[in-house]
Amino acid sequence: MRFEGEKATDIRIAYIGGGSKGWAWGLMSDLAAEPKLSGTVKLYDIDYQAAANNAAIGNRLNGREDVSARWTYEAAGSLQAALTGADFVIISILPGTFAEMESDVHLPEEYGIYQTVGDTVGPGGLMRALRTIPMYVEIAEGIERFAPDAWVINFTNPMTLCVRTLYEVFPKIKAIGCCHEVFGTQNLLVDMLKDLKGLEGIARRDIQVNVLGINHFTWIDQASCRGMDLIPLYREFAEKYGEIGFEREPGRWAESPFRSANRIHFDLFKRYHVIAAAGDRHLAEFMPGTWYLKDPETIRSWKIGITPVSLRVQKGENLLRRSERLTNGEEEFPLKKTGEDTVSILKALVGLESLVTNVNMPNAGQIGGIPAGAVVETNASFRADSVRPVQAGELSPDIHALVLRHVMNQETVLRAALTRDKRLALAAFLNDPLVTIAPGEAEALFHRMLNHTRAYLPGWEL
Amino acid sequence: MRFEGEKATDIRIAYIGGGSKGWAWGLMSDLAAEPKLSGTVKLYDIDYQAAANNAAIGNRLNGREDVSARWTYEAAGSLQAALTGADFVIISILPGTFAEMESDVHLPEEYGIYQTVGDTVGPGGLMRALRTIPMYVEIAEGIERFAPDAWVINFTNPMTLCVRTLYEVFPKIKAIGCCHEVFGTQNLLVDMLKDLKGLEGIARRDIQVNVLGINHFTWIDQASCRGMDLIPLYREFAEKYGEIGFEREPGRWAESPFRSANRIHFDLFKRYHVIAAAGDRHLAEFMPGTWYLKDPETIRSWKIGITPVSLRVQKGENLLRRSERLTNGEEEFPLKKTGEDTVSILKALVGLESLVTNVNMPNAGQIGGIPAGAVVETNASFRADSVRPVQAGELSPDIHALVLRHVMNQETVLRAALTRDKRLALAAFLNDPLVTIAPGEAEALFHRMLNHTRAYLPGWEL
Amino acid sequence: MRFEGEKATDIRIAYIGGGSKGWAWGLMSDLAAEPKLSGTVKLYDIDYQAAANNAAIGNRLNGREDVSARWTYEAAGSLQAALTGADFVIISILPGTFAEMESDVHLPEEYGIYQTVGDTVGPGGLMRALRTIPMYVEIAEGIERFAPDAWVINFTNPMTLCVRTLYEVFPKIKAIGCCHEVFGTQNLLVDMLKDLKGLEGIARRDIQVNVLGINHFTWIDQASCRGMDLIPLYREFAEKYGEIGFEREPGRWAESPFRSANRIHFDLFKRYHVIAAAGDRHLAEFMPGTWYLKDPETIRSWKIGITPVSLRVQKGENLLRRSERLTNGEEEFPLKKTGEDTVSILKALVGLESLVTNVNMPNAGQIGGIPAGAVVETNASFRADSVRPVQAGELSPDIHALVLRHVMNQETVLRAALTRDKRLALAAFLNDPLVTIAPGEAEALFHRMLNHTRAYLPGWEL
Amino acid sequence: MRFEGEKATDIRIAYIGGGSKGWAWGLMSDLAAEPKLSGTVKLYDIDYQAAANNAAIGNRLNGREDVSARWTYEAAGSLQAALTGADFVIISILPGTFAEMESDVHLPEEYGIYQTVGDTVGPGGLMRALRTIPMYVEIAEGIERFAPDAWVINFTNPMTLCVRTLYEVFPKIKAIGCCHEVFGTQNLLVDMLKDLKGLEGIARRDIQVNVLGINHFTWIDQASCRGMDLIPLYREFAEKYGEIGFEREPGRWAESPFRSANRIHFDLFKRYHVIAAAGDRHLAEFMPGTWYLKDPETIRSWKIGITPVSLRVQKGENLLRRSERLTNGEEEFPLKKTGEDTVSILKALVGLESLVTNVNMPNAGQIGGIPAGAVVETNASFRADSVRPVQAGELSPDIHALVLRHVMNQETVLRAALTRDKRLALAAFLNDPLVTIAPGEAEALFHRMLNHTRAYLPGWEL
Ligand SMILES: [Mg+2]
Ligand SMILES: [Mg+2]
Ligand SMILES: [Mg+2]
Ligand SMILES: [Mg+2]
Repeated sequence: MRFEGEKATDIRIAYIGGGSKGWAWGLMSDLAAEPKLSGTVKLYDIDYQAAANNAAIGNRLNGREDVSARWTYEAAGSLQAALTGADFVIISILPGTFAEMESDVHLPEEYGIYQTVGDTVGPGGLMRALRTIPMYVEIAEGIERFAPDAWVINFTNPMTLCVRTLYEVFPKIKAIGCCHEVFGTQNLLVDMLKDLKGLEGIARRDIQVNVLGINHFTWIDQASCRGMDLIPLYREFAEKYGEIGFEREPGRWAESPFRSANRIHFDLFKRYHVIAAAGDRHLAEFMPGTWYLKDPETIRSWKIGITPVSLRVQKGENLLRRSERLTNGEEEFPLKKTGEDTVSILKALVGLESLVTNVNMPNAGQIGGIPAGAVVETNASFRADSVRPVQAGELSPDIHALVLRHVMNQETVLRAALTRDKRLALAAFLNDPLVTIAPGEAEALFHRMLNHTRAYLPGWEL
Repeated sequence: MRFEGEKATDIRIAYIGGGSKGWAWGLMSDLAAEPKLSGTVKLYDIDYQAAANNAAIGNRLNGREDVSARWTYEAAGSLQAALTGADFVIISILPGTFAEMESDVHLPEEYGIYQTVGDTVGPGGLMRALRTIPMYVEIAEGIERFAPDAWVINFTNPMTLCVRTLYEVFPKIKAIGCCHEVFGTQNLLVDMLKDLKGLEGIARRDIQVNVLGINHFTWIDQASCRGMDLIPLYREFAEKYGEIGFEREPGRWAESPFRSANRIHFDLFKRYHVIAAAGDRHLAEFMPGTWYLKDPETIRSWKIGITPVSLRVQKGENLLRRSERLTNGEEEFPLKKTGEDTVSILKALVGLESLVTNVNMPNAGQIGGIPAGAVVETNASFRADSVRPVQAGELSPDIHALVLRHVMNQETVLRAALTRDKRLALAAFLNDPLVTIAPGEAEALFHRMLNHTRAYLPGWEL
Repeated sequence: MRFEGEKATDIRIAYIGGGSKGWAWGLMSDLAAEPKLSGTVKLYDIDYQAAANNAAIGNRLNGREDVSARWTYEAAGSLQAALTGADFVIISILPGTFAEMESDVHLPEEYGIYQTVGDTVGPGGLMRALRTIPMYVEIAEGIERFAPDAWVINFTNPMTLCVRTLYEVFPKIKAIGCCHEVFGTQNLLVDMLKDLKGLEGIARRDIQVNVLGINHFTWIDQASCRGMDLIPLYREFAEKYGEIGFEREPGRWAESPFRSANRIHFDLFKRYHVIAAAGDRHLAEFMPGTWYLKDPETIRSWKIGITPVSLRVQKGENLLRRSERLTNGEEEFPLKKTGEDTVSILKALVGLESLVTNVNMPNAGQIGGIPAGAVVETNASFRADSVRPVQAGELSPDIHALVLRHVMNQETVLRAALTRDKRLALAAFLNDPLVTIAPGEAEALFHRMLNHTRAYLPGWEL
Repeated sequence: MRFEGEKATDIRIAYIGGGSKGWAWGLMSDLAAEPKLSGTVKLYDIDYQAAANNAAIGNRLNGREDVSARWTYEAAGSLQAALTGADFVIISILPGTFAEMESDVHLPEEYGIYQTVGDTVGPGGLMRALRTIPMYVEIAEGIERFAPDAWVINFTNPMTLCVRTLYEVFPKIKAIGCCHEVFGTQNLLVDMLKDLKGLEGIARRDIQVNVLGINHFTWIDQASCRGMDLIPLYREFAEKYGEIGFEREPGRWAESPFRSANRIHFDLFKRYHVIAAAGDRHLAEFMPGTWYLKDPETIRSWKIGITPVSLRVQKGENLLRRSERLTNGEEEFPLKKTGEDTVSILKALVGLESLVTNVNMPNAGQIGGIPAGAVVETNASFRADSVRPVQAGELSPDIHALVLRHVMNQETVLRAALTRDKRLALAAFLNDPLVTIAPGEAEALFHRMLNHTRAYLPGWEL
C-alpha cells in the first residue's frame, strides 16, 4: 500500500471465502464506488472455481464508466498465496454445507426446539461453532505466518467465536468483526423519528448510539440525534407499536423469513428499559426457549418466521446460476452500495479518514464486568493502523446476567472445540437458553447433531 | 474482651434472632463446652419473650458440672441495647413467618415449579431475599452505629444476599457468613474413604478441600486426606453409587425430607468433573427446573424430597413446647456439640488459635472471574481480629457459567430490593433456572408471590 | 438548552474563576466566533468586581459585526447562583495568590531544587495541590447540589488532582479536564513534516495520535498523518535536532521563560522510544531533579528557563490595567481564536458534531496497569451528552514506572489533603523525583512551604 | 513419594546449586531432624565436585544416632538427571562468582553509590538480576521438560526476579520463593514483648502477622500475639529505641556487617506507621540513596555496615576447607536447626500438616493494586499439593508508591534481560532509588558494570 496524493493505491486484500456470491459481490460494488482506494483482491476459496468466477466478475468491472476505482481480482490457489503480502484480510466463509445447516436449524425442531436463524447460539449455533473453530485455527495460523501485520476483518458467523478464535491462536492479530445488525436498529430509530416527529432526511449515521453487548445480542443504552435523547422517544414508540409491530413496509415480515416487525425489540425494551440492537430473529435465539420460540404459533405471534434451510438452498442455486451469467458476461454486474461500513473502515485504517462505529473485539475494559478477552461489541475509534474500542460502560445487572450467560457458554464452546472435549461441549449445550427440554432428551439431540457435523471435527472421539 | 492467661474473658456477644430455638441452643451447647471463652450473650429478638426464655435457659447452665465455661445470657430490649459494646454479633433470624414460607415453597408448585428448600434461589429464595434485605439494611445500619468494630457472623439464609447487604450498607463491616454444607461434603468424603479404602477414624477436618463458589452452590476442585488425592477416588465412588445413591444409613432419605442419597452429587460430578459441596436438596435448586425438580416423580427418582412447610410448622410447635419446659426447668438442657465451626472461629478471632475453614465473604479476588464485591464461599485464614480469604483460583468455564448466572441474578435481586424496583425483581425471577415456564405464567406467579410477602416490603408500589 | 434548527440556543454556562483575565477572555473570543451556539455565561469569582468587569467586557461584544453569536454575560454573587440551571460548568481558577506561588516556585531553590513551572508536581505542585483540593471539594459539593447533570470542564492546575477531587467528592459528576499541551506536540509534528518532508498546510488535527499518561506527562506511542507513520520520522527529527534543539522561530526560548527548544522532548525520545507530549518545561519537572533541573546552568543547557513568579506578577498587573480599559471601553476587545478545543467540545456535547480528542478523566480501563479511578489523559470520543475514553493500551514498563510513581504520589497527596494528614503529605513530598536532597533538609523545606500556604489549609494541625 | 502410615517416604528432591556450603548443609540438618520424611536428594551443581562432596557429607549422616531420618544424597551429572522424577526442586545458586559480586557491590562506591548487600535492587541487584535471569530461563525450561509437576522452592536472590522468571518461562510451574527476613522481624517482636512487657517464652510462630510487599521490602500492617495488638506496642518500642537502636545483644552490629540495630526499622515505622519486615541492610537499599546510604558516615550512623565482598571471599575459603574436612570425615557434621520453614513446607505439601506462612508468588490478587503476575510476598496457606496465597489487602498509598516503583523496575529488568535490551536495562538502572547521581555519570557506571558481567550475558550487543 502507498499513498499518491489523497489516494491509497496498491492496497492488497486477501479475501478468504472469496468464492462467496453474496459478501464478495457486495465488496466489489462498494470498492467500485470509492475513488480513493485501489489495488488487488486475492480471492481464496476451498471451491477454487467459485473464486475464479468471482475474479472474472470483478475484473470485468474495470473499464466500466460507472466504476470509480481500479481493482484487480485474482483467484488464489492456497491460503498462503492469498495471505502473502496482504494489507487486509477479509474472511467471509460458509463453515460446512447446507447439509450441516439443515441439521443445525431443523433437527432440534423434532425435540421442540425452534430456531429462527441457528447460526450464532442455540443448538445450531453451537454445532456451527464447533466446526468453524478448527477452520479459524487454521486461518489464524496462516495469518500469523504469512500476514502478521495485516488487518483482519471477519464477517462469518458465529461472529464472536470466530474473532475469539483468531485472538486465541494468534494474540497479536489485528482482527475485528463487523456486523450490520446495529445499523438496522439505527435505521429503526430513523423510522421512529419520522413516525413520531415527522422528521425526514435523517441518515443512519446521524443516530449516535452507545453500543454494548455481544454480537447479535447487543444493547444501546444511550441514543441521540442532533442532541435529542432518543430513549424516551423509543419508550413511546414501543408503547405505540408493541402489540401490532412496526415495519417500514407493513406486512413484509409475513412474506420473508429474513424480516420481522420488531415486536421482540419492543418487548425487550418494555422489560429491560434498554434498546436491543439486533434483528428480532437473532434476539429471539438468545432468550429462553419458552419466550419467543416456544412453538410455531408463538413464533408467528411475534411476527417473525423461521428461516428454512431449504430457502437458503434454493437461493444458493439461483446465485450459482447468476454467478455463471455474470462470469460469462450474459448479465451485467449491478453496482449497488451495501450499506456496510467496510470501505469506510478500509479508508480509516489506511489513514484517509477517521471513524467511530461498532465492532467486535476482545474485551480489554470497553465493557465493565465482562471477562477480559471475551469478544464484545462496542463502538471503536478507527484511524490509521488502529482500531481502539471506546469505553461503553456497564450493562445493568438484569441484562448483564443474560449476556454473561452467553459469554460463558461461548468460552466453554471455545475450550471444547480447542481440546475436542465432548463433555464440555455438552455442558455448554445444556446451558443454552433455548435448551429447555429435559437433560436426557437434550443429550440425545446433542449426540445426533454432533454426529451430523462429524466430518468437520477431526481428532474428536465421537 | 480481655485475656486472663490463656483464656479470653468478658467476651460480649450480641445475638440477633436470639429467640431462636435451634441455632441459639446450639450455640449455648458449644459455648458451654469451651473452657477458654467466657462472657455475656445479649439475645435480641422481635419476639422478646422468646429471647427472655432463651436467657433463662442459658443462665440455668451455669453451675452444672458438665459445663466448662461461665456465660451470662440477657434478653435485650432493642437492637441498640444488644449491639452496644458487642465484640461479636451473631445473626440467625427467620425472615417473616411460616405463612410467607408456605407461599415461597408451595405456591410455585401450582405452576409446575418444585423446590426442595426454597430459601436460597428459585422463586421462593428470591421472595425470601426481597423481604430479608430490608431487615439486613436495618441490622447493618445498627452495627455501623453501635458496634462498628464487632465481628459479625451470619447464619441466616439466603446467606449470600444477607452478607452482601451488610457490606453494601456498611462497607467497612467485618462480617462473615457461615454454613455447614461444605462440612457435609467433607463427611461424605470421610464415608467414601471408609467405603472404598476401609479407612476408619478419619475426622472431617482431616479432609483438606479447596472450596469455590457461592453458598449452597459451592464446588471442591481439590481434595486430599493425608496426601491422598481424593478426586480420582470420588470418580470411583460416583460410579459405584451413581444409580443407587449412598447414605451412611441407607434409606434414610425416604424417611426425612432433610436428607438425601447424594445422587445429585454424583450426577453433577459425572457431568462437571468437580465435586459439588452442598446437600442435594440445595444443589437441585440451582440447576434448571427440568433437571432434578421437574415433577414429584423425578424428584423422588433422585432420592430427595420436598421439605414441606407444614413439617416446619409442626417442628416449630414442638420446639415451642420444649422451650417452655426448658425455661421452667421441667426438662434439662441437653449439651451436644453441633459440629459447627462457630466456637473455633470465636477462638481464632480473639487470638487463641488459628484456623483455615470455608466462609462467605465479598469477592476481593479469592475467586477469579467473579465480580468484585459479590459474596462468594471459599476458604479463609482466621486469626486474631482477621479473616482473610485464601485464593481459590477459578472455576472451569462450564461451572463458572452456572455459578455466574446466580451471582448476577443475586446482584439484580439486591438492587431490586434496595430500590424497590418490581420490574428488576421480575427480571431476576424470570432468569432463575427453576423458572422454565412461559413468561406470562411466570409473571402471574411472581405477582401472587410478591403480594403474599407485601407486609415485608415497605415503600414498594405493588 | 434547546435546539433551533441546526443551532443550540439558551446554553447556560457557569464559569468558576470568571474574573480571570486570560482564560475567560479566550472563551469569549472562541464563543464569539461560533455561530451555532448561544446562551448565557454566569461568571463567578471570589473577586466579584473582576467577574463584573468581565461581564461588561463580554456583553460589549454583542452587536459587533465581527461577532457571530449572541452571548449574555452575568456576574454571579455566589457559587450557588452561578451553578443553578447550568448546562456546563467551566472551572479556571488561580488557587491562592502570587505570594503562595512565589513560595511554591522559588523557596525550593534555596535548597537546590529548581522548578520551571511549579504548578503540577514537585514541591511547588504538591503545595498548590494541598491548597487547591479543599477548594475543589467545595466546588464538587456545589455541583452535586446545584448542577448535578451539568458537564464540567476543568482548566485549573494541578489538572490531575483537580479532576480527581471532583470525582472523589461526587462520583457521578460528568467532569473532564482539558489541557492544550498535547496540541503543542501535534504542532511540533506538523513542523517536523515541513522540516523533514517539505510538507506544507498540514493542520494540527491532521496529526492522529494515541495519547496515554497523566496530564503534563503524557506520551504518544502511535502517530500518523495521512497514513504516514510519524514515529520513525520523529526518530530522525530527534537525531537531527537533539543537540541544538528545534523551534519554529529559533532562539525564542532564550527570550521567554514560557518557551523551549524541545531538547527534552528529543532526549526523552532517545531514552524511551516514545514521544513525550507536553512542553519541555512541564516534562522536566516529572523527571529526577538531577536530570534537567539540577542547577541553573544545567537548565539553560537544555534550552529552557525557570518561569519567575515576578514575571507573572508583572503580567498580572498589565492585565489588570487592560481589563479596566476593556471594561470602560477605552480599548476594543480583540477577537482571536485560542486554538483550544473548548467550543468543539461544547458543540459535541450538545449534539452538533462528534469529536475524538484528548482529555483527562478517571481511569476505567483506558490505560492498562494504572489503578482504576486515577485521573489519566487519553483520547476520548465526544458526542451528545457523552465523553467516552478511547482505549489507549499500556505504556512500556520503563515509562510506566515513571508515570506510576507520580500517580501514586498524587493519590497520596489527595488523601493527605482530604484527611489533613501532614505525615502523609510529607511522605509524598519526599517521594517526588525533584526532591533529591537529604530527607532532613527536605523535611525542613516542606514545613516552611506548608507554613506559607497555611491560610488555605483550614483544619490542619500545623 | 508414597505414604507409609504417618510417614512420607521415597521423596525425591532435586537440589540445584547442590554444591552450596551454606544452604545445602542447612537442609541436611533440618531433614535429619524430621522423622516423618525420607527419600533421596539429587545434588546438581555446575561445580560437580562440590556436589559430590556434599553427597558424601550427607550420606555420612545415615547411621548417626542423633539423626531421625534416612536420606540418600547423590551428585547429579546434569540438570536433566537431577530433575527427572523429582517431587521437589530446591534452587539455591550463586549466580556468577565473587568477581562479579565485587563489581556489583563496590564499583558503584566510586560514584558515591553505597550498597549494604547489593543482591536485590540497586545497581548491584540489577546486574545480578541480568545475569541470573538467563540461568533461570534454563532452569525453568528444564523443569517444564523433566519435572513439570514438581514443587519448586527458590532461595536464590534476587528472589522476586528468580521466581518471576520461572513463571514467565513456564506459567504452569508450581514455584514459590522462601526467605527468612520476615522471621527476623517476628523475632524482633518477640524481643519487644520481652523488653516492654516482660513476656518470656514467646516463640516466633506465636507472632501472627499480615505480610504484604515484595521480598526484602515487605511490610506488616497487622501483628498480634495471643490476641494482643502489637502495632501500638511497636510504636512505643520505636520511640524507645529509635535513636539508640535495639539489638538482642547490644553492639553486635558494629562487629558484623551481617547485623543491624534496627534503627531503619524504627525510622520507617515513624514515617509510614507500618512495620517494615526485612533486615535494615536490605531495607536501606530500597529507599533513596540520600536516606540511609548516602556515605559511609551516614551508614554508620544508622548502625549498619556494608558487607564487603572480600569478607564473603574469606568466608568462602573457610567453608571450602571445612567442606573438605567434612567430606573426608576429619570433622563431624554438626546438626543444627536453621529456623527456616523448608521442612514444614515439605511436610505440608506432601499432606502431613497444614501451615500458613509467608512466601513469594505471582500476584493473583493477594495484594491489591500490584499488577497481576508481579511476584509479591504475602502469607499463603500450605496444604497437600497446594500453596494458596492469603489475601493481604492493600498497602497505604505512600508505601504503595515506594513498593510499586521497584515492582515496575523489576518488570523492566525482566524484559530487558529476556530481550537483551541494553536501553531498557539502562532505563531501569536510572530509575533505581539508589541512583541519585546525574544521568551521564550513572550511564558510565552502568556500562562499566555491565561489561564486568558480560560473560553471563550471551547474545547481548555490548
Ligand atoms: Mg451478523
Ligand atoms: Mg446453609
Ligand atoms: Mg496544562
Ligand atoms: Mg532473603
